[in-house]
Amino acid sequence: MTEQSPRIGIIGTGAIGGFYGLMLARAGFDVHFLLRSEYAAVSEHGLHLNSTVHGALHLHPVQAYARAADMPPCDWLLVGTKSTGNVELAPTLAQVAAPGAKVVLLQNGLDVEDSLRAHLPPSLHLLGGLCYIGVHRSGPGVVEHQALGRVNLGYHSGSAANDEARRNAIVEEGAALFHQAGIESQAMPSVHLARWHKLVWNVPYNGLSVLLGTGTTAMMADESSRELIQALMAEVVKGAHACGHEIPASYAQQMFAMTETMDDYLPSMYHDHVHKRPLELAAIYARPLAAAEAAGCELPRMQALYQALSFIDRHHR
Amino acid sequence: MTEQSPRIGIIGTGAIGGFYGLMLARAGFDVHFLLRSEYAAVSEHGLHLNSTVHGALHLHPVQAYARAADMPPCDWLLVGTKSTGNVELAPTLAQVAAPGAKVVLLQNGLDVEDSLRAHLPPSLHLLGGLCYIGVHRSGPGVVEHQALGRVNLGYHSGSAANDEARRNAIVEEGAALFHQAGIESQAMPSVHLARWHKLVWNVPYNGLSVLLGTGTTAMMADESSRELIQALMAEVVKGAHACGHEIPASYAQQMFAMTETMDDYLPSMYHDHVHKRPLELAAIYARPLAAAEAAGCELPRMQALYQALSFIDRHHR
Repeated sequence: MTEQSPRIGIIGTGAIGGFYGLMLARAGFDVHFLLRSEYAAVSEHGLHLNSTVHGALHLHPVQAYARAADMPPCDWLLVGTKSTGNVELAPTLAQVAAPGAKVVLLQNGLDVEDSLRAHLPPSLHLLGGLCYIGVHRSGPGVVEHQALGRVNLGYHSGSAANDEARRNAIVEEGAALFHQAGIESQAMPSVHLARWHKLVWNVPYNGLSVLLGTGTTAMMADESSRELIQALMAEVVKGAHACGHEIPASYAQQMFAMTETMDDYLPSMYHDHVHKRPLELAAIYARPLAAAEAAGCELPRMQALYQALSFIDRHHR
Repeated sequence: MTEQSPRIGIIGTGAIGGFYGLMLARAGFDVHFLLRSEYAAVSEHGLHLNSTVHGALHLHPVQAYARAADMPPCDWLLVGTKSTGNVELAPTLAQVAAPGAKVVLLQNGLDVEDSLRAHLPPSLHLLGGLCYIGVHRSGPGVVEHQALGRVNLGYHSGSAANDEARRNAIVEEGAALFHQAGIESQAMPSVHLARWHKLVWNVPYNGLSVLLGTGTTAMMADESSRELIQALMAEVVKGAHACGHEIPASYAQQMFAMTETMDDYLPSMYHDHVHKRPLELAAIYARPLAAAEAAGCELPRMQALYQALSFIDRHHR
C-alpha cells in the first residue's frame, strides 16, 4: 500500500463488518473497527474468521475502538449494523468521517439510505453495498464464512450526485478496494437497481426462513416451497420493472440455482427472529411494496408474506 | 317423536359428531353413536357437553357401538370424521345405512364427497353439511361448545340427483331434523355453493392459525393479519365467482364481523397441527385452487398460504 491508501472504518463489527474488515486489513489496508459489546474480546483476542473459501484467518492485534470519538478520520466507512438503527447512527458516522468520505451501507432492503441521508453532512458520499455472502457470528469476534462474498456497489447521494463521471469514479474506487482484498465487486449504475437485484434473493429466503422455521436446504428440497420462492422472485422482478428497473428473469433463475448449490444457510432474518430482535421488514418488504404500489403494481404474495411477518414480529418479541 | 321418526347414526363421535348427536338425542330422536377409542369411556360415563349457549348437558346412557356391524340400520348418517379418511369410511357407511338412507358429511372443504361417492351404493343420498360452530373435545366423551351451531345442507349425489323436487325435499327434511333439535339449519340450493360459502371462513382462519400459531382473537386484534384475512376472503369470493357460485361481498364482511364477536377460537387445523395429525389441505386449499385455476382464475395469496402450509405439513409430522 502507498501512503495514499485510504483509511477504512468498519462501523458495526458483526459478521458482515468483521468479514470485510478482516479481509481488507489482511490485504494491507489501514482498517479501524468500531465495536460495542465485543470490544474487550476483540481487543484481547483479535478477530477470527473461519471460512470455507479462505480457510482459518486471524487478525491480531486489531485497531479496535469502543468509542467513535477515539477513531481517526476515515476515508471509507463500511456500515455493517442493522438498517433499523440508521437514524441513530448518523452522529457517529459524521464524527468518524474524513472530509469527503464515502459511507457504504452494507445492508439489505430498499431505500435504507433515505432515513440516514438527512442527518449526514452534505459533503459525505453515501453508497449502497449489496453483499452476496453467507456469514454468521459464532461468538465474540468470531465469524463463520460459509459461501460467496461479492459486494455490489451503487451511488446514492452526496456532492457527486449530479456529476455522473465523478459518481462512477467513486463507485469504481470502492469496487477496486474490494478487488484488492480478493473480493468480487461490481459497480452498479444505480443503487436502486442494485437493491432491487438483492431483493430477488432476500424477499423469499429471509421471510420464509422465519415463517417455515428452516434454512435454505429444506426450502430447496420441497416442491411447495420451491414454487413459492419462484413466485415471490417473479413478483420482485415485476415490482422492479414497475419502478423502472429491469431485472432479467434469468437473474432470478440464477439466484435460485445458486441457492441450490449452497450448503444450508439460515438468513439473517431467521437469526433476528430466534433472538427476538426486530425483523428488517420495512427495508425488505414495506418499502418495495409501497414503491411498487405507487407505480400501480400489486405484489399479492409478497404482501401476504409481509403481513404474516408483521404479525409474527409484533407478537414474538 | 312418532314411530316414523328417523333413526340417526353418528359416525365419528368427536366434537362435531358428539355435539349434534347429543342435541338430536336430547330432542327425542333415536340416535346411535359409532365410536373408536372413546367407546369404553362413553359407554360408562355417557356424553358430556359444556356449552356457553345450552349450559351443561349430559347424555346417559348412550346408544354407543364399537363396531358398525352391531348398529341398527339408520335413515340419516351424520359423519363427523376428518375428510382425509373418507374413502376408508365407505364400507362402514354402506353397512350402517338403511335403504335409501341419507349420508351427511359434516366436514369442511370442497368436493369432500367426490372420493367417497364412488364407493357408496347408488341408492344412498349423499349430502354436504357445513357447520358454523366453535367446538372442541376436552376429554373422552367431553365436548366444549364455545359458540354458534348452524348447519347448512346441500345435496351432492344419489338417486334424487336429477329430481329437483325430491332433492329439495330431502335437504329440507334434514334441515327440519336440526331445527327440531334447536339448531339453525339452512337448505342450500347447491352443495358446492354451500361449501364455497364455508371456505370464506376456513381458508383464512384455519391456515393462519397454523402459520401464525394463534387463535382468532389475536388475529382480529392485529392490523396486518386483519388485512390478510380480508384479502384471503376476497380471493375465495373471487374463486367461487369464477366457478359459477355467487357469494356477495357482504357475506365475507359478515363472517369477518362475526369472528370479531367470538371468544378466542382455535380452528381445527390448529389442533391438527399441534397434535401432528395430517392437515386438511386438499379439501380446504388444493381443490378450491384447482377449481378456480380450471376456470382461469388465479388466487395468489391463497396459493402462497397453501404452499407454506404444505411445507409445514410435510416437515412437522
